[in-house]
Amino acid sequence: MTTTPPARPVPEALAGLPGFTRDPAELERVRTDRSGYVPPTRPAGLVRARTVEDVVRTLRAAHEHRVPVVPRGAGTGLAAGASAREGEIVLDLHRMNRILRIDPVEQIAVVEPGVLNADLNAAAAEHGLFYAPDPASTSICSVGGNIATNAGGMRCAKYGVTREAVLALTVVLADGRVLTTGAGTVKAVTGYDLKALFTGSEGTLGVVVEAVLRLRPAPVATATVAAWFRDVGSAAAAASAVIAARATPSVLELVDGPTLGAIDLATGSAHRSRGEAFLLAQTDGFGAELERDVVLRAIEPFAESVLVADDPAEAEALVQARRSAIPSLEALGRVSIGDVGVPRHRLAEMVTGLRRIAEETGVEICTVAHAADGNLHPMIVVDRDEPITEGPPKLALGRMFELARSLGGTLTGEHGVGLLKQDWFTAEVGELSREVQHRIKQALDPHGILNPGKAV
Amino acid sequence: MTTTPPARPVPEALAGLPGFTRDPAELERVRTDRSGYVPPTRPAGLVRARTVEDVVRTLRAAHEHRVPVVPRGAGTGLAAGASAREGEIVLDLHRMNRILRIDPVEQIAVVEPGVLNADLNAAAAEHGLFYAPDPASTSICSVGGNIATNAGGMRCAKYGVTREAVLALTVVLADGRVLTTGAGTVKAVTGYDLKALFTGSEGTLGVVVEAVLRLRPAPVATATVAAWFRDVGSAAAAASAVIAARATPSVLELVDGPTLGAIDLATGSAHRSRGEAFLLAQTDGFGAELERDVVLRAIEPFAESVLVADDPAEAEALVQARRSAIPSLEALGRVSIGDVGVPRHRLAEMVTGLRRIAEETGVEICTVAHAADGNLHPMIVVDRDEPITEGPPKLALGRMFELARSLGGTLTGEHGVGLLKQDWFTAEVGELSREVQHRIKQALDPHGILNPGKAV
Ligand SMILES: Cc1cc2nc3c(=O)[nH]c(=O)nc-3n(C[C@H](O)[C@H](O)[C@H](O)COP(=O)(O)OP(=O)(O)OC[C@H]3O[C@@H](n4cnc5c(N)ncnc54)[C@H](O)[C@@H]3O)c2cc1C
Ligand SMILES: Cc1cc2nc3c(=O)[nH]c(=O)nc-3n(C[C@H](O)[C@H](O)[C@H](O)COP(=O)(O)OP(=O)(O)OC[C@H]3O[C@@H](n4cnc5c(N)ncnc54)[C@H](O)[C@@H]3O)c2cc1C
Repeated sequence: MTTTPPARPVPEALAGLPGFTRDPAELERVRTDRSGYVPPTRPAGLVRARTVEDVVRTLRAAHEHRVPVVPRGAGTGLAAGASAREGEIVLDLHRMNRILRIDPVEQIAVVEPGVLNADLNAAAAEHGLFYAPDPASTSICSVGGNIATNAGGMRCAKYGVTREAVLALTVVLADGRVLTTGAGTVKAVTGYDLKALFTGSEGTLGVVVEAVLRLRPAPVATATVAAWFRDVGSAAAAASAVIAARATPSVLELVDGPTLGAIDLATGSAHRSRGEAFLLAQTDGFGAELERDVVLRAIEPFAESVLVADDPAEAEALVQARRSAIPSLEALGRVSIGDVGVPRHRLAEMVTGLRRIAEETGVEICTVAHAADGNLHPMIVVDRDEPITEGPPKLALGRMFELARSLGGTLTGEHGVGLLKQDWFTAEVGELSREVQHRIKQALDPHGILNPGKAV
Repeated sequence: MTTTPPARPVPEALAGLPGFTRDPAELERVRTDRSGYVPPTRPAGLVRARTVEDVVRTLRAAHEHRVPVVPRGAGTGLAAGASAREGEIVLDLHRMNRILRIDPVEQIAVVEPGVLNADLNAAAAEHGLFYAPDPASTSICSVGGNIATNAGGMRCAKYGVTREAVLALTVVLADGRVLTTGAGTVKAVTGYDLKALFTGSEGTLGVVVEAVLRLRPAPVATATVAAWFRDVGSAAAAASAVIAARATPSVLELVDGPTLGAIDLATGSAHRSRGEAFLLAQTDGFGAELERDVVLRAIEPFAESVLVADDPAEAEALVQARRSAIPSLEALGRVSIGDVGVPRHRLAEMVTGLRRIAEETGVEICTVAHAADGNLHPMIVVDRDEPITEGPPKLALGRMFELARSLGGTLTGEHGVGLLKQDWFTAEVGELSREVQHRIKQALDPHGILNPGKAV
């Protein structure tokens, strides 16, 4: 921890807002997210918005006085996108958490940004529906944060990421003006797809204050297969085989040995005794069991043991094991969570390469993956007082990105660039794309007050 | 037809390009699309691009000399997006039609923009895969045009529109620089989603010269139901009932009586003798038949007669009937094709309202709809020498848009704004959105040379 710098003056137009506070405990709470990164300084203040009008007034004042604003949902981000520094004001949206409307016939939900992903799913479930994007953080992350990061999750390979679920957005622009974009219909192509541009823009182009989201019919049936493997390469090969068999699993999650060990330690399970890697596959819909058999046949040749989990409670326990991966590792130390993506058939090469990187840099790397998307989370675990943005962890992160890119992959599949991945941004997108993105940023936020230094 | 104006001088930098021509027959061919709109003048010239370099040289010269350029795929657009006027140069991409690579394991295709949608699908089918966006024009429209319009089709309710299938794009910007955006992975969130911004931008932000597209496993089974109804309101109600029953049909197409009459006339079928409206539903995947039964139960209470088409040839004939709707009407006169979208449970209100508009304005309106998306194509049929952009047809079009909007809908679900729907654009998106879109356009195409007057 670093010392807190002297408070800088905040213009009265901001400091006078009803939800404004400088309470040190509150500032400490909103200083960073779950990325493991702690900024060297604390933000200058915090506005806890309750209404669209609060957001409008905050941005109008910030725009006028050139005060940088960091939008914040539930603070579960893994790229330090919501981390805030000296001179910045945090705009906290977690209290704007009403589900405004669920239309079960049209299968849409209209929500405020602070609604938790799991709360939306619980409300949808009452109507036999579900909201597809389901980060493992579902019970603690906000839908606004999901939109700002274009969050993924376990069900995305089949049902699409957040972008595919966003039908319309109400966004407060940098200057406080309120833009509505998208439509209340499944399809609409009137003009540029601004809602897709805002989705994943990490709070740098506008603040999402309302969203119309697509819900989907809850599957009539779900079938679950779990498998344990001698090594993580075999598990990755099995995952690729599932895709090559042309199945469309709704869940295909890979967990490596070290992560299994941490889960066992935290939850009392005994996964690691069954193998050095674990694969969880689910199929769903009217043909769930038939499709499960295709998945099963693809996995079997690679596995040490396979389990068909017919009992829903057993299946749910397996899903929960996967969901608990990150918290289990966090119990062991400070965790820096990677988010690389590779073409799906190169999973095995990637996990093997990660092993090599761990050996070469001397850091411990634990990996889980949304295997059907080729999206891996290699997690570097260090002691709680060690930094993750310098030394071997940073070296390992850099190698990881290079490896992913050399396999035709990407720096970040679903968590975003935030502050943490700035160093590698241009290497991935190229100079020209960077320039174009900056021009768009400039067009929408000419004074650069929205989440400066993040994303682009 | 209007008379051709005197040719305006085209800068040598353009006129000297290898693929350049002023051949009047060629200019006549590329003057407009399938919207029924004929511009009053002819373009100044045409570049038939064969390579990325041709596109680069064209745009570089056009940028320097401030010559407006109209990108053109296969010219099947329905919004006059590819229509060209005096002083404009058409950049024809249909000869850049190579499928560069299909990777059956990764399930992606890398294509040039001129590839026909049906050709891509045929190539994918050899690997047990398919390309989901399937406009009824599949055999005559280009993938580049599909991307530029964010095209939909029959399978989109289940499999998503073009935007969901685009993984990466290579785009030549207005100044001739070549931008690559997106990744070869299923998910990637590094920076702004430029590929989604280019998708649906109707050639106003850049020219697509290569695309990485997502393919999907061909369904192991497909089940088909057809139903005929007393009136179109009943058919629309049945379609809404299918959605409310929480089925996810891959196809749910509605055809009204007048359109059935035109199809019968053109193809020798006898659909109209069975009812005044027709609904075609398909389910697919491992549980196709179980899900078909859900669809069947939802439809039956509204229908006069129902047919389960077990024979694939019979099912294909039904799909073909739907696909032939537009050509059948085009055989009868000049057709102006609407493209409104409404929330899915308001289909019946919309089709009833269309009847009223037809009566009040005295034009004939024939309607087909991608019912699962709430996307309707009300088609105004006029004599071949009557204009569609003035008088009663224009009045009816305007009423249609107003009706759709009053039901919470949109001006265009999948065809785009083009030139034809400019008058209603701002009414739908609002002044602020228009301003933001213009700022983005300005940021990417400062001299405004790319398809001026279209889309935004
Ligand atoms: C245990 C654990 C598991 C996780 N698993 C997944 C996973 O499977 N998939 C996945 O994608 N992510 C996962 N995450 C990461 C994280 O939960 C997601 O990125 C989530 O979308 C962040 O939401 P949030 O509300 O916490 O956003 P925050 O962390 O508060 O903010 C994230 C970014 O969004 C911006 N932002 C937030 N709200 C708004 C708004 N209303 N308007 C504009 N900008 C806004 C912020 O400025 C910041 O840039 C996981 C995190 C944890 C801790
Ligand atoms: C019988 C019939 C049925 C149809 N059914 C459907 C349907 O079901 N769903 C649907 O969505 N559409 C449908 N359409 C409309 C049309 O086929 C689509 O809009 C299609 O995507 C247009 O493709 P194209 O290659 O013909 O494009 P064009 O008409 O040549 O151009 C369309 C737009 O895209 C731009 N453009 C074309 N290529 C590029 C490129 N490479 N880079 C940048 N810009 C480019 C043009 O400037 C123009 O603005 C139908 C049309 C017909 C005639």
